[in-house]
Amino acid sequence: MRRYILRDENAVYYECGYSNDNALFLRLEDAAWLVTDSRYTTEAKEAVRGAEVVEASDLIKAVRSLLRAHRVRKLVYDPKEWPVEALEALHSKLPRLYLRPEPAFSHRKRMIKSPEEIALLARAAELGREAFRAFGAYVAREGVGLSEKRLHFVAEGILRREGAYALSFDPIVAVGANAAKPHALPTERVLRRGDLLLLDAGLKYRRYCSDRTRTVYVGDEICFGEDQRFASPRIQRAYDLVRKAHDTAISKARAGMTGAQIDALAREVIEKGGMGEAFVHSTGHGVGLDIHEMPYISKKSQTVVEDGMVFTIEPGIYIPGEFGIRIEDMVVMRNGRPEIL
Amino acid sequence: MRRYILRDENAVYYECGYSNDNALFLRLEDAAWLVTDSRYTTEAKEAVRGAEVVEASDLIKAVRSLLRAHRVRKLVYDPKEWPVEALEALHSKLPRLYLRPEPAFSHRKRMIKSPEEIALLARAAELGREAFRAFGAYVAREGVGLSEKRLHFVAEGILRREGAYALSFDPIVAVGANAAKPHALPTERVLRRGDLLLLDAGLKYRRYCSDRTRTVYVGDEICFGEDQRFASPRIQRAYDLVRKAHDTAISKARAGMTGAQIDALAREVIEKGGMGEAFVHSTGHGVGLDIHEMPYISKKSQTVVEDGMVFTIEPGIYIPGEFGIRIEDMVVMRNGRPEIL
Repeated sequence: MRRYILRDENAVYYECGYSNDNALFLRLEDAAWLVTDSRYTTEAKEAVRGAEVVEASDLIKAVRSLLRAHRVRKLVYDPKEWPVEALEALHSKLPRLYLRPEPAFSHRKRMIKSPEEIALLARAAELGREAFRAFGAYVAREGVGLSEKRLHFVAEGILRREGAYALSFDPIVAVGANAAKPHALPTERVLRRGDLLLLDAGLKYRRYCSDRTRTVYVGDEICFGEDQRFASPRIQRAYDLVRKAHDTAISKARAGMTGAQIDALAREVIEKGGMGEAFVHSTGHGVGLDIHEMPYISKKSQTVVEDGMVFTIEPGIYIPGEFGIRIEDMVVMRNGRPEIL
Repeated sequence: MRRYILRDENAVYYECGYSNDNALFLRLEDAAWLVTDSRYTTEAKEAVRGAEVVEASDLIKAVRSLLRAHRVRKLVYDPKEWPVEALEALHSKLPRLYLRPEPAFSHRKRMIKSPEEIALLARAAELGREAFRAFGAYVAREGVGLSEKRLHFVAEGILRREGAYALSFDPIVAVGANAAKPHALPTERVLRRGDLLLLDAGLKYRRYCSDRTRTVYVGDEICFGEDQRFASPRIQRAYDLVRKAHDTAISKARAGMTGAQIDALAREVIEKGGMGEAFVHSTGHGVGLDIHEMPYISKKSQTVVEDGMVFTIEPGIYIPGEFGIRIEDMVVMRNGRPEIL
């Protein structure tokens, strides 16, 4: 057990099964408190597990009282999640308290998923895959002639299943040259036959996120699978390179490699294809309660990837003004190798 | 002109008409920069006004280079928006830089709205009002028998108008005793005739938020207006008290009063009615690019309310396990008095 304080919504949820936008979680060895304001205490008392609910209008003041009552001298916090002002408020009247910074404290705790968490992430991924299939069928049926904005709205509705699920993030629906922006916002651009269409989207199943991307050719038929035949040989060549990078990283990654080593597996394929400069982001990121977690699969990541970690593999090629391609899957490290969720 | 650095999305947007989830805005007198990563630079260059777009993988490092190049000795930041780690990274290699904390720096700048901003907020409020009417018509037609979750999904769809608008926040749709939680999450609770139904919701028009709450009686007819007749005399009494508090605050508030004085106008009505303890939150909050901004209309707020400020008036009464009531409108201070938007 440890002594720490958390304020990020998912970090708090991970500890006690409940959180909101104005709550603090304090753990002092085997005792724990969820401190929140009166708007939330009724539902907090129903939902919190393993912690006492404390109602306060000034959350920091309530935490200071608890720290004083328990004569706490040292407390861990995450300097990524605490704003300067809140930390100073905590410290101001407790000058002898040592606040020990541990960056990404909760993300590190959450990096290796439990079997229960992996089951939730697998279910989220499965629901996400089903939504991609349903979106593909919709686009094939009536998508041509609709704007990115309209397709974005349709994608959201399909992912959310009439409100049953929340979204992991605002979906990216991009047509043609708009797909060259890795985080494109939907525009009035209308989908035509012969266009490239990119969908990057996910949903939350019991708060655990899915994340998936497919880039497809809108021909007479539309399939949101990996086999794609583009009319443009230039786009096809880039697509094949992204697919090879994606498949290579998944087949060659092993437990014990660093994030940087796995990133290099994908990056080298695209670099050897002469398009390294067009792969403008990292190969992947962990997924869990947050859509972006550890381990990061990037050039700089020295995190050693182990069994039980869940992350994306999502290489891409982006040619501004022309097109963008990305293929993304979630994988779990199991028996030393990635398995697609 | 000033020298400051911002990282909050809406603070950055206010300065240059663009923002994303990984951007910094730096102003040094009449020069300004929007620093972001390669995923976003294509769209940033299309959208940013009055600032140069800088692409960087390490945003803080890029800002340090700009600060060094311009020999900056003093820079304002907001300790509410900067995490400890990011601020330390900025400071670490520039030990002679004085980082001056100004809490709520951007919110203070944005507190008095321009005529253009008030027009956007008025339009958002109008669209929000229309959505409440449409939701009321839907509930009257086919809402009885649906769960809160389903009604929540319907409310979202109506507010968003098939993707034309984003939401200001996750709408609150609460039936009966669930409404006693001011920030209730939707459940499987089914709406029946004779129930109380609370809707607290808003949408964004060109990024400016609306915010509105109505609590209605689901009888043979359903109207999302302020005139309500509940079957329970106890609920009716509480409703009339909330309505009187709402109307009193709006009719008696004046420019020059503090937020606390306006809060007291509503609170005294409910206290005199003997239900002061059931009004568990503050009377209102500013609305703009953020759904919660200055001025706060709360017991403690010493902010002087002036012409051009836009805020909510939203008293409520909450009886855990029984019911909750809230009536909320957005007002703008004009010619010294609040006008409902």
